[in-house]
Amino acid sequence: MALTPEFSLPSDNRRVLLVERPHAVPEPRHFRIERGAVPQPAEGQVLVRNIYLSVDPAQRGWAGDVSNYSAPVPLGTTMRALALGQVVESRIEDVACGTYVYGWLGWQDFAVVSKEALLTVFATPTVPLSAYAGPLGINGITAELALSLHARPKKGETILVSAAAGAVGSIVGQLARRSGCRTIGLAGGPDKVERCMDHYGFDTAIDYKATDLASAIESTAPDGFDIYFDNVGGGTLDRALRHMRIGGRIVQCGTVSIQSWSPIPTGPRVEREILTRRLCWNGFIVFDYEPLFADTIAGLAKLIRSGELLYDEDIDDGIEAAPNALAELYAGRNQGKKLIFLN
Amino acid sequence: MALTPEFSLPSDNRRVLLVERPHAVPEPRHFRIERGAVPQPAEGQVLVRNIYLSVDPAQRGWAGDVSNYSAPVPLGTTMRALALGQVVESRIEDVACGTYVYGWLGWQDFAVVSKEALLTVFATPTVPLSAYAGPLGINGITAELALSLHARPKKGETILVSAAAGAVGSIVGQLARRSGCRTIGLAGGPDKVERCMDHYGFDTAIDYKATDLASAIESTAPDGFDIYFDNVGGGTLDRALRHMRIGGRIVQCGTVSIQSWSPIPTGPRVEREILTRRLCWNGFIVFDYEPLFADTIAGLAKLIRSGELLYDEDIDDGIEAAPNALAELYAGRNQGKKLIFLN
Repeated sequence: MALTPEFSLPSDNRRVLLVERPHAVPEPRHFRIERGAVPQPAEGQVLVRNIYLSVDPAQRGWAGDVSNYSAPVPLGTTMRALALGQVVESRIEDVACGTYVYGWLGWQDFAVVSKEALLTVFATPTVPLSAYAGPLGINGITAELALSLHARPKKGETILVSAAAGAVGSIVGQLARRSGCRTIGLAGGPDKVERCMDHYGFDTAIDYKATDLASAIESTAPDGFDIYFDNVGGGTLDRALRHMRIGGRIVQCGTVSIQSWSPIPTGPRVEREILTRRLCWNGFIVFDYEPLFADTIAGLAKLIRSGELLYDEDIDDGIEAAPNALAELYAGRNQGKKLIFLN
Repeated sequence: MALTPEFSLPSDNRRVLLVERPHAVPEPRHFRIERGAVPQPAEGQVLVRNIYLSVDPAQRGWAGDVSNYSAPVPLGTTMRALALGQVVESRIEDVACGTYVYGWLGWQDFAVVSKEALLTVFATPTVPLSAYAGPLGINGITAELALSLHARPKKGETILVSAAAGAVGSIVGQLARRSGCRTIGLAGGPDKVERCMDHYGFDTAIDYKATDLASAIESTAPDGFDIYFDNVGGGTLDRALRHMRIGGRIVQCGTVSIQSWSPIPTGPRVEREILTRRLCWNGFIVFDYEPLFADTIAGLAKLIRSGELLYDEDIDDGIEAAPNALAELYAGRNQGKKLIFLN
């Protein structure tokens, strides 16, 4: 099996511009695709042909009008996105033409970037190329580092993972299981629940759409959770928080269940739970840990090659799919890491 | 100055019984004082004459009907409390008569307890005796351990402390300042604010009763807080949380501003703040760290003796003060660590 797909070198550049600021989840009307000339790299830059555009929940925050951990994408500019591509022209000394790169390449056919924009640089893929934008991209790295640095799973502990069939959650479940944890996944719909259990090896998976969550949690883990790896926030978090064991750890990696943060939604107060259960609740953003990426990727790649770490992909064809991709993602309609293949 | 006060040995035992379960803050009607015989220690027990009864916010939880980190005090029994006393009869081999002890002695004149109930045992006080129930009791130990284990103050950081004039907060401020932090205290009323600044050395103190908290926080710490040491919860926490710096630490040591947890009060959702600011929020209960008490007390006692750590006390006379003591404490009417001296 070839690890790299066939792809073309178009003669012009299509860019997905953010043209209207979304209040909640970005929809097609917030974007416009514009065609222009292929840009030229200056000294210290590379020209990259994007092959896989990444679709990530965090892009809602980057596009949004509520202040985030990064400055909002300026209107009228290319939508900020991670992508995986190949260098087709290089004016950076140690990055050869033909090198594969993953980083801040944006939703566009071609990117001209300097070295700071590149998170991963590699000459030859050792697993299928697209994996470098998913389980070896920010999703897998988040799973590994948030687990090891904050959740600190120990043999015999019980972990609850939300969005367990997702690009991060599915890897969290597999890695936590390797640490000897009992893994419980939350997913929406019977297909995802089945995938969690049959494919990703969760000990149990709960369909949060079909079940009374409180009683499902109670019956699945009567003694509570040592770890809650949360990608969704909201009512699921409220339930899990009240079912944590003493000394439990919560890792906050996402809040995808909250449609809008303006105005700030309310919920049951948490400080008493944090105090009496002696919880440790950490926010995690993977970009704080760039120096650890290379080693983390190497470790995860080894597990993928040996078949010990499984992943799924949901790949759309063509840049035309980009404007609707976040709406699809937030609606949970993807079955695996959502990518857009630029063929 | 004598380090130990004169006290009497009464011929009978008065006990403060919990007779009605409070829904919120315990008031006099929830207690009854009952007189009975002085109990006799069995093998493996000591008879302690209590000298200082401790009044602690945590007692609300121990008395309450909402599940807590410890089982509720059974109705009709002596109110659970820390106290400091002297052994007047010993049937424990290595605890001599005349030894001072601090621990789970209850709101009563005399306690018969086994060794497990004793948190601190010492032959001779090196600072005024009452300090062993305050800055060398759970209040000071909480300040020191919650700071060093969770808040991890670093030189040049900014820390916000709520209930800053209180038994814990006043010590947190002084210890954080010794670590090189800029210290900002929140206190209720001009007297406490003055005490925070003139006595405990806070760089700034804010009267949360007289000020618009949001703008006071903004003008006092425009760059945000690295640490929030929270004893109060509620709206103050909501404000502070939204003013934390990236990588900030919140230590939850109390929730005294919340009058009742049943039904659970609501507030603005927090998961987005935790995520985007990469906060680390820890609950702290000092009783998890008993093995560290002796060394911690030794360190704090040294600072008290050298005059580098100041504390205040608000001492009521006579056990009759106990039933109203928690209501007074929650109303913030004490000026320093609240104790009851049994003369």
